Amino acid sequence: MSEVGTVAVAGLGLIGGSAARDLAAAGVRVLGWDRDAASLGAAVEEGVVSAALGPGFEGLEEADVLLVAVPVGAAAAVLETALPRLGKVRLVTDAGSTKASIVAAAERLGIADRFVGAHPFAGDHRAGWDASRAGLFAGATVYLCPTERSSPEAMALARALWSLVGGLPVEITAAEHDRRLAWTSHLPQVVSSALAATLAARGFRRADLGPGGRDATRLAASSAEVWAGILADNRAPVAEALAALEDRIRSIRASIESDNPESIRTLLQATQAWGEGEYHRK
Amino acid sequence: MSEVGTVAVAGLGLIGGSAARDLAAAGVRVLGWDRDAASLGAAVEEGVVSAALGPGFEGLEEADVLLVAVPVGAAAAVLETALPRLGKVRLVTDAGSTKASIVAAAERLGIADRFVGAHPFAGDHRAGWDASRAGLFAGATVYLCPTERSSPEAMALARALWSLVGGLPVEITAAEHDRRLAWTSHLPQVVSSALAATLAARGFRRADLGPGGRDATRLAASSAEVWAGILADNRAPVAEALAALEDRIRSIRASIESDNPESIRTLLQATQAWGEGEYHRK
Repeated sequence: MSEVGTVAVAGLGLIGGSAARDLAAAGVRVLGWDRDAASLGAAVEEGVVSAALGPGFEGLEEADVLLVAVPVGAAAAVLETALPRLGKVRLVTDAGSTKASIVAAAERLGIADRFVGAHPFAGDHRAGWDASRAGLFAGATVYLCPTERSSPEAMALARALWSLVGGLPVEITAAEHDRRLAWTSHLPQVVSSALAATLAARGFRRADLGPGGRDATRLAASSAEVWAGILADNRAPVAEALAALEDRIRSIRASIESDNPESIRTLLQATQAWGEGEYHRK
Repeated sequence: MSEVGTVAVAGLGLIGGSAARDLAAAGVRVLGWDRDAASLGAAVEEGVVSAALGPGFEGLEEADVLLVAVPVGAAAAVLETALPRLGKVRLVTDAGSTKASIVAAAERLGIADRFVGAHPFAGDHRAGWDASRAGLFAGATVYLCPTERSSPEAMALARALWSLVGGLPVEITAAEHDRRLAWTSHLPQVVSSALAATLAARGFRRADLGPGGRDATRLAASSAEVWAGILADNRAPVAEALAALEDRIRSIRASIESDNPESIRTLLQATQAWGEGEYHRK
């Protein structure tokens, strides 16, 4: 019996479903909620979820922890629906890719003491219960973003919960998280989608690419629903990162057009070293 | 004994080394040349290369086929060095990522009838003999670009050679190849490098990325020498592709800045379908 007690997972997609699998495998009792009856039914049938919560979170009273793993734009509404039944829940956490808005929602809803935002930096372009799997978080950074009043108990439970599924918790403020992830996650996603859209408009299919191009566009297959929410929720930092990339591409294009191979070689040598893990800030 | 006879491979890096391995495994006698004595020595020692050619291609007289697999910018000079010893060679081919300049070089050097340019659309960000391996070309498209006077025998030999290592030959003109690859290969490479440079300038290391960002920047680790040559050799088509991508990123950024989630969602839905292989030209 783990110290995290009974965990309710709201949203049994790639992230929530994978967490539910790891928790159940660790002996934790998992309650499940999903707006999609088929996913919820499958999770119960496979023995991952012990009991299904009602659509209004009926049954949540038995949980010690609530993990909300729905798209960013839907998370606050799910929290609000669950609110009347949070009774003995000692930790409410989430798994969204942006953190400022959900932390603010928790404060607004009066559960700041019990809330610790989380973002497991794992997953891939797939989505849904069928894509969920054990071990998804093994070795992955899990950003933990407390509210202004998260209790020590809630923080300890959040660390325990995310460690239990194999993650490596790292504490960071929600604002700093969102600024950082705009570069390390949202920028690569938009670039991959922009590259896909550019190729598609020219009439190329993904099968026309080589292995490198397929890697560079893999993220384009990510869930549009999930990513539209993330980008809408982190507009200014993402726009700043995109503007920096535009500058860089324009500058490379200028070097190519003006036949400046030395400039291109210097850039490629630096990024080659960076890609190999030895890039140092200049 | 294969119909391709004895094959001389000039340049025992990722591409040439892998071809040499597959050819040797298929029972073909392989002669080797490399400006790096250590790579050449290793290829001989491992039994892949039967005999090392001299630095001026001494010994090439025994070969039926010459495969030049050196960086794009060095290929014409290697061809020129080998020229006096091409004696009974019935096919000269290459493996470069651009084709117009090497086809033009073959015509200029008076070997147009024996030359068929080739580009196996395979490989990864690694380089050198140590990265070479059997099976690299299995199932990969191999673009074959004849000169204006390639003989039927040379074409048949080129098809046989590249099929022997597992590739799928596709005939295309050199000009069309270079325009096409600017989009399907050179553009993803530059985007990956630009993304890496943007992240590096902001102080992020590759280890700071999640799995998606690491995929999107994998190509950044590609050989700077190889890619500087490719980009210098295909300037106008690459610049056109980069300009199209810049427009696309700018347009996405405008949608994000003006808080137009529907526009972003529509784009992401289209690229998601494209990423899943169902994108249709609009």
